[in-house]
Amino acid sequence: MAKQPQSAISPTRAENFPEWYQQVVRAADLAENSDVRGCMVIKPWGFAIWENIQRRLDAMFKATGHENAYFPLFIPMSFLEKEAEHVEGFAKECAVVTHHRLEPDGKGGLRPAPSAQLEEPLIVRPTSETIIGATFARWVQSYRDLPILINQWANVVRWELRTRLFLRTAEFLWQEGHTVHATEAEAREETMRMLDVYADFAERAMAMPVIKGEKTAGERFPGAVSTYSIEAMMQDRKALQAGTSHFLGQNFARAQNIKFQDENGQEVLAWTTSWGVSTRLIGGLIMTHADDDGLVLPPKLAPAHVVILPIYRNDDERAQVMPYCAKLEQDLVAQTYAGEPIRVRIDNRDIRGGEKKWQWVKRGVPVRVEIGPRDVASGKVFYGRRDSSGKFESPRAEFVAHIGKTLDEIQTVLFGRAVEKRALATVRIDSLPEFETFFASKDEEKSEGGGLAYCHFVESPEMEEKLKDLRVTVRCVPLGGEEETGKCIFTGQPSKRRGVFAKAY
Amino acid sequence: MAKQPQSAISPTRAENFPEWYQQVVRAADLAENSDVRGCMVIKPWGFAIWENIQRRLDAMFKATGHENAYFPLFIPMSFLEKEAEHVEGFAKECAVVTHHRLEPDGKGGLRPAPSAQLEEPLIVRPTSETIIGATFARWVQSYRDLPILINQWANVVRWELRTRLFLRTAEFLWQEGHTVHATEAEAREETMRMLDVYADFAERAMAMPVIKGEKTAGERFPGAVSTYSIEAMMQDRKALQAGTSHFLGQNFARAQNIKFQDENGQEVLAWTTSWGVSTRLIGGLIMTHADDDGLVLPPKLAPAHVVILPIYRNDDERAQVMPYCAKLEQDLVAQTYAGEPIRVRIDNRDIRGGEKKWQWVKRGVPVRVEIGPRDVASGKVFYGRRDSSGKFESPRAEFVAHIGKTLDEIQTVLFGRAVEKRALATVRIDSLPEFETFFASKDEEKSEGGGLAYCHFVESPEMEEKLKDLRVTVRCVPLGGEEETGKCIFTGQPSKRRGVFAKAY
Repeated sequence: MAKQPQSAISPTRAENFPEWYQQVVRAADLAENSDVRGCMVIKPWGFAIWENIQRRLDAMFKATGHENAYFPLFIPMSFLEKEAEHVEGFAKECAVVTHHRLEPDGKGGLRPAPSAQLEEPLIVRPTSETIIGATFARWVQSYRDLPILINQWANVVRWELRTRLFLRTAEFLWQEGHTVHATEAEAREETMRMLDVYADFAERAMAMPVIKGEKTAGERFPGAVSTYSIEAMMQDRKALQAGTSHFLGQNFARAQNIKFQDENGQEVLAWTTSWGVSTRLIGGLIMTHADDDGLVLPPKLAPAHVVILPIYRNDDERAQVMPYCAKLEQDLVAQTYAGEPIRVRIDNRDIRGGEKKWQWVKRGVPVRVEIGPRDVASGKVFYGRRDSSGKFESPRAEFVAHIGKTLDEIQTVLFGRAVEKRALATVRIDSLPEFETFFASKDEEKSEGGGLAYCHFVESPEMEEKLKDLRVTVRCVPLGGEEETGKCIFTGQPSKRRGVFAKAY
Repeated sequence: MAKQPQSAISPTRAENFPEWYQQVVRAADLAENSDVRGCMVIKPWGFAIWENIQRRLDAMFKATGHENAYFPLFIPMSFLEKEAEHVEGFAKECAVVTHHRLEPDGKGGLRPAPSAQLEEPLIVRPTSETIIGATFARWVQSYRDLPILINQWANVVRWELRTRLFLRTAEFLWQEGHTVHATEAEAREETMRMLDVYADFAERAMAMPVIKGEKTAGERFPGAVSTYSIEAMMQDRKALQAGTSHFLGQNFARAQNIKFQDENGQEVLAWTTSWGVSTRLIGGLIMTHADDDGLVLPPKLAPAHVVILPIYRNDDERAQVMPYCAKLEQDLVAQTYAGEPIRVRIDNRDIRGGEKKWQWVKRGVPVRVEIGPRDVASGKVFYGRRDSSGKFESPRAEFVAHIGKTLDEIQTVLFGRAVEKRALATVRIDSLPEFETFFASKDEEKSEGGGLAYCHFVESPEMEEKLKDLRVTVRCVPLGGEEETGKCIFTGQPSKRRGVFAKAY
């Protein structure tokens, strides 16, 4: 066995959290930068996590009545001009297609053909409200056509200068839900339903606790009446917006002319919503659970639940060990966890055992089993759990029969730890000096932010300026909290609600 | 009941096949043109077919050892300049991104910001050999890293002037497999393996018979050493290329610098393949099976296997019928077909029964069940099969128990019919006049082509010219055929093989 380092990832979280993040992504073989500035390559292990996210979310969308469809990658430039706030928010940094042909440049290379300039430039979608809205305007004639409940899995592009794998990239993968309703009440209900779906998914599948809340006016989606989000806390005590659900009122319906005849034969404007989560969730997954030995995967989203590592020194031992491993795999995949068959990999690559084991630790597989000739003889299984540094031992039959329970325990442990970390970093603050101290201080782990601060506030220029100084943002006003009389810590104005403040990604 | 027209789709196939196609797409609610020239909107019913195609193909790819990953949407222009034939083939009609920002144009609109022009234009991928190859060059160091077996589900763009829904659109959805191997033999084996996967999928899942063959030099993928395809015959007797698998030799490895150290420590070039199918398959599905009443779906790909249409005239009847329908659905979904639970929809919309029934006929659902109070009382099920105009009757329990068998019969019937149609339109031709007559004639159904002609040939300028005149193409040289001595019908040169000639999409 290779000598084990203090930790498999260097630097550690405490030493340098941003660099630790990059190293975890690299060590777990999740993604890498591509030859195109700001665009990432999602590698098989990372993409398999995304496939698991997609499969579970897609089932939840369908269970709530939504259907998938697909809309164009391109948006005519004029479409972005229609909704005033939206154009402000999205028409800036985007990829603009201006030509439809290349031609030889006369120097052995290529150039966009001047004769093939588009009359109207096309924008690579940064989000699809405008192009989907224009389609919905054709689909909706009567109240009988409503509601329209559509989701799209797609790639989108927002030109970003400073990028970070999964967290902020020029191109990313996401889903965007777009719905049309006859009444405001129905559209608001839909907005909240999908926020609940996201929160449920984040907590149950990702084991990542979230706060559901409403964004302040300054943080709303451009063109929305109300924006809601789920906010998670990362291990550096910074917040991550992990999903958003927007009540768009009639703003986009007005801009896109989505009208229908109501039951009285009156032509009226429809009400719309949109909601989305992206590959950013994988960044959230990493920063919630990974440790100084690399990725830690919640079993529900792990591409492999169990990895089997055969150990043998010669052909004789191989002949004993390999069939035993194959049979173990067969027995495990007949078991289920969270409604799906157990996912097993046997790693029989010809590399040193220690190196192999550590690769799977760094990739975050929940359960590792090493099988050598002695294990075959004893009928026992020795295994490692990624949520623990201990060694576990179990009779073979019991290990197989309990694998679902073991995975469930790991899922529960991960969620519990994340809840606890968040609780330890959550405070109520009622004065500005206290607020400044909280966010100015570096805590012992050298995290960058102080955590989540619940404070009374009223949106004001004074608040904006102070937050900008401290590099703090108001994440949301949590839903379901009690009204409470207080004073805005920035201006002293009376306030009835606390917001959650944090440094953020 | 609405009076039934002679056929639900007008015009019929015999009257005007291309227009019939558009009307089937429209009547089945599969897709529509968007506001962006050449780009389509895939509607929920069409997209659900694509999801079924994806799910089944994806499982076949994984079963043959492939993993999914994701690569950038954009390709730097210089990448297209590297492989000479490839640039000829793909660097022409494509979407070119030249700017990364919009700004106000001073007239109330927007324009690409001159200050935000890209140093190097980016191309929206028309196919990803170049960008994926550049990535593989980083991944491959040693023979131990091989093979690399990757698939990507993605959107691609090829600027097209004349477009047709599913068959030819500027943007389309597809999968592209990209693999790297240590030896020529392994790469050739992979190329054929994936061709077999496509043929198997086409025949077993789509019920669409295909010919596996090799493309002639003139029809090869730009940059490939050998291109293989599956070719299907549509009901207008024209051929449709439904999938391709390319042996790329070392051409792309050379252009992209994909090298590795072999077992002797020598640095050598790798061997690569690529293979793909697209949303075009849905066009093939339609033109293989649809009839003058609209879409006909092979059960394996149908978004719904069974649609239940409740029929009642008042609340009393409703109270009898609806629970019965719900129970029937529950019993059906507990059954399976082709390894998946039976997919059932209850259509309880408040529209006339006749109109409702015809909507589902036009959408191609394999089995339709109408349930009224008398059916509840009798315990019998009356149902329609989309592969037949007859009415069927069965005791309820038997209908449920046999649903898998019924669907299997429909799948088999559809495949059998398609095989028969192809057989009737396939000929061997040994002289040029006969060839000209075959392709000049309009047959009784006013189809545009004569069918599939197996002819001896040697590629030559004479042949190219004649084929161009007749608007005929050589589809492929079928695999597995016997060698046969003959003479090229175009030049009289000796030939040992027949090719398949046809008009084509």
